[in-house]
Amino acid sequence: MPTVILFGAGNVASHIGPALQATGYEIAAVVSRRASSAQALAEKLSAAALTFEHHPKYPAADICLYAVSDDALPLLACQVAASYPEAVHVHTSGSTAADVFSPFVASYGVFYPMQTFTKGAPLNFRDIPCFIEGSDAHATDVITRMAESLSAHVTPLGFEARRDLHLAAVWACNFVNHCYNQAADIISRHPELSFDMLLPLIDETARKVHRLSPREAQTGPAVRFDRRIIDMQSQRLAHTPLSRDIYQLMSRSIHEHATAQPSSNPPSPLNP
Amino acid sequence: MPTVILFGAGNVASHIGPALQATGYEIAAVVSRRASSAQALAEKLSAAALTFEHHPKYPAADICLYAVSDDALPLLACQVAASYPEAVHVHTSGSTAADVFSPFVASYGVFYPMQTFTKGAPLNFRDIPCFIEGSDAHATDVITRMAESLSAHVTPLGFEARRDLHLAAVWACNFVNHCYNQAADIISRHPELSFDMLLPLIDETARKVHRLSPREAQTGPAVRFDRRIIDMQSQRLAHTPLSRDIYQLMSRSIHEHATAQPSSNPPSPLNP
Repeated sequence: MPTVILFGAGNVASHIGPALQATGYEIAAVVSRRASSAQALAEKLSAAALTFEHHPKYPAADICLYAVSDDALPLLACQVAASYPEAVHVHTSGSTAADVFSPFVASYGVFYPMQTFTKGAPLNFRDIPCFIEGSDAHATDVITRMAESLSAHVTPLGFEARRDLHLAAVWACNFVNHCYNQAADIISRHPELSFDMLLPLIDETARKVHRLSPREAQTGPAVRFDRRIIDMQSQRLAHTPLSRDIYQLMSRSIHEHATAQPSSNPPSPLNP
Repeated sequence: MPTVILFGAGNVASHIGPALQATGYEIAAVVSRRASSAQALAEKLSAAALTFEHHPKYPAADICLYAVSDDALPLLACQVAASYPEAVHVHTSGSTAADVFSPFVASYGVFYPMQTFTKGAPLNFRDIPCFIEGSDAHATDVITRMAESLSAHVTPLGFEARRDLHLAAVWACNFVNHCYNQAADIISRHPELSFDMLLPLIDETARKVHRLSPREAQTGPAVRFDRRIIDMQSQRLAHTPLSRDIYQLMSRSIHEHATAQPSSNPPSPLNP
């Protein structure tokens, strides 16, 4: 089985590392900016714990897997990749092009698992949709085998579509979670209420879009554009102006989506 | 068992009517603005189908239950309630005070089931958190018994807390669903992508806040305030300015929430 150097010890790396190891891949080293982070993940994987200062003395490996933040990736690729020309260099980002590696090595690509990863929040990797791209036949082969060993849902995807998929994921996950956070803030004003009371609503809202389109599933004052309720609710947010501004734009946008004619005017590519 | 006149034949009424009937309540009539709507729901309940023009010739009932939109409620209460002084008058709104009925009758209140109701999307009413309020002992007793026959999660709640709960529900449901809709719009630009690919992410995002607070659960470019990704994603929305504006405010708000110090500075009542 191939050996892997795993760059990063954060939310994504801490899920991919154990999942890869469980399918038989050998994690030779975990490399992180901070020694303590590398140590914590490397211990779980019986791997060497290294920092960026150990470069270029990382062990040899078949795959260099970069599970680091988008803003760290270009510099890390530049510093590291050329020293390991035999390896396939793979990052996990939705929004960075594969060719971040192209000045340095021939075989590289992307393994983008579209999920929200938090350390300690267990996930079944088999269920995670993964989107892959390879620079040449060798990279594509190595990445495809790695992806299919982890997930039952692997799709080849180019950068244009992948970055829009990542943008869609930001809406469907990060922005959704922030709406939960806004709800939690409001709930916290009232000692007789608790966030748990919202969970059946949160669950049903997610469940509904398995059967209906989000457009069909929409309910509430904004879709009816009930001006009295919208003004009153907006007023309740007057002391948090940023939340109030988001509330007002969201209400307008919901109403615009509801009154658009999707069947007679299908969305144009960039103007849905 | 008490008899009920059900006003409204929309999403909420079409769930409450059958649920009430299943627990033994007799739905004497369904009253709606449009005869065809009243007819459709009344047939399922073996009830009389009436319109607002039949007033004041509705059958006698113990409960007048108003499952109508917030903007229709005040006028309907004014037109109807005084003619049925023996009944308890109950509305289902999160954002209208119980005393919309106070000029007309003595016994009135609120039964607010906090859920997203769509016709034809089945729900188990036992699981729905319901919030109730009664104007006097009789109303409170009648409404409590009705609520507890429908739901295992009944909480008495005054108007101040109820309307903030409704506002929280708008964030946790309507705005969340609109984020799904925005994601669907973006996905629709690419024939090789489908909305279904987002469902594992949507499900996990909802599941995570059962175990973590939304603040702890947050991931993605905005919480890291990765300027390059935020600018690039913002640019991808340039042709839909309202969506782009929401994207930018949401990203800013996520970052502000992430950098606030919740443990040392707990949120003040109106300035979380």
